[in-house]
Amino acid sequence: MKKVAVILAGCGVYDGAEINEVVLTLLHLSKAGAQYQAFAPDIEQLHVINHLTGEEVEQSRNVLQEAARIVRGDIKAVTELNPDEFDALIVPGGFGAAKNLSDFALKGVEAKVQTDVLAACQGFAKANKAAGYMCIAPAMVPLIYGPGVIATIGNDEGTAQAITQLGATHQTCTVDDIVVDETHKLVTTPAYMLAQDLAQAETGIAKLVKQVLNMAI
Amino acid sequence: MKKVAVILAGCGVYDGAEINEVVLTLLHLSKAGAQYQAFAPDIEQLHVINHLTGEEVEQSRNVLQEAARIVRGDIKAVTELNPDEFDALIVPGGFGAAKNLSDFALKGVEAKVQTDVLAACQGFAKANKAAGYMCIAPAMVPLIYGPGVIATIGNDEGTAQAITQLGATHQTCTVDDIVVDETHKLVTTPAYMLAQDLAQAETGIAKLVKQVLNMAI
Repeated sequence: MKKVAVILAGCGVYDGAEINEVVLTLLHLSKAGAQYQAFAPDIEQLHVINHLTGEEVEQSRNVLQEAARIVRGDIKAVTELNPDEFDALIVPGGFGAAKNLSDFALKGVEAKVQTDVLAACQGFAKANKAAGYMCIAPAMVPLIYGPGVIATIGNDEGTAQAITQLGATHQTCTVDDIVVDETHKLVTTPAYMLAQDLAQAETGIAKLVKQVLNMAI
Repeated sequence: MKKVAVILAGCGVYDGAEINEVVLTLLHLSKAGAQYQAFAPDIEQLHVINHLTGEEVEQSRNVLQEAARIVRGDIKAVTELNPDEFDALIVPGGFGAAKNLSDFALKGVEAKVQTDVLAACQGFAKANKAAGYMCIAPAMVPLIYGPGVIATIGNDEGTAQAITQLGATHQTCTVDDIVVDETHKLVTTPAYMLAQDLAQAETGIAKLVKQVLNMAI
C-alpha cells in the first residue's frame, strides 16, 4: 500500500487550502487504496478572509488548526513530516499555498517558501520521490526543485510569467489534464485555477493522483 | 436541469458542516448535471472547536460566513431559500446540524430546529418535494415532517432512541446504503455516523444524491 503525505494550507480558498481540491485529492487516494497523512505548518495564517464578502476580518487563525477541519482532526505539524516514511507528496492549492505555504501572493518573483514546508517538500525532491502540486501551488516548485522544472498553473499569463521568472518552464494546460515532468517525477494540474465546477476539477485531480501513484515506487 | 438547494451548517465536523459530506454531495450533483445553490443560516455558531485538539476556542464565528468557505463564497442566507424555486433539498451532516441548524446536540429529545432552517425545510416537506438528510441531520426530520417519518442515522442506539422519541421511525442502515421514505419523499444515509474513510462515505452519499434526483419531479 502506497503512503502519501498531503500538505494543507488552511481551510478555505481565499486564505487557506481550496477545500474541494483537498477532498477530491483524498477521495481519489482513498479510492485507489493508498494510505495518506495530512500535514500543515503550525503557524498563523497571513490573514483571515470573510468568504462571503471577500473582506479581511480582524482575527487570527492557525493554519494547522484550520486545516484540521477538513480532515476531521487527523493531521500533524509539517515539521513531523519525514519524507523517508512516504512514497509521494501532494500539495493542493487555494490562496493559502501562496499566502501561508509561501508568500507568492505578496512577493511574486521575490517569493520564498515557508521554512518548514520548504524542508519537507525538498526532502521529496532530493529523494526523487513522486510529487503532485495543483492550482497555484506549482508557483512554489521552482523554489523547491530549482531551475528547469516543468509545471503548469493553467493558462493565466501573469502567473505563468512569474513562475517562469522564478525558474520554472511553464506549460499551458487545460483543466482536465496534467503536466508531467518525468525527470523530477513532478505532476501538476490547474484545478481551480480553471475549474468552473466540481466535476471539472475532479477530472484533472483524479489524473494527478493516478499519475503520482504510478510514479511512486 | 434539476435544481437542488443544499443547507450547510458551517465549516468543520465538530462545530459546523462535515466538509467531506458537503463536497461529496456537491460533486455528485455536479456529475449528475444538476444545478445547486448553497444556503446557511446567518447566525453565530453555537461555539468554535479547535479541530486539532477538540477543545472549545474563545471566538465567535458566523455559520453563513464559515459555510461560504466550502463553496467559494457562492452561498445565500437560508431566509432567501424559496422552496418554489427548487426541485429538491439536501442537508449534509456534521455536528453543526445538531448545534447550529438545530439544538439536538444540547437538548436531545427536547430539541428544536432553528427558526429559519425549519421554515425552509418544512417548505419542501409541505410541497412534498424530494429531500435528503445525512449523518446526524436526520435527527431533525421528525421535527420537520412530524410523527411517523422514516429515517436512519446508522446504528447508534442512543441517537436512534432519541429520534424515535421525537417521533421518527428509525431504520438501521449500513454506511453504503440509504433509507427511503416514499410517502415523504425523504432519503437518509449514515455517512460519517459510520464512514471510516472517504471512499465509504462516497458510496452512501452518491446513492442518496441519485435517489433524491430520481424523486425530484
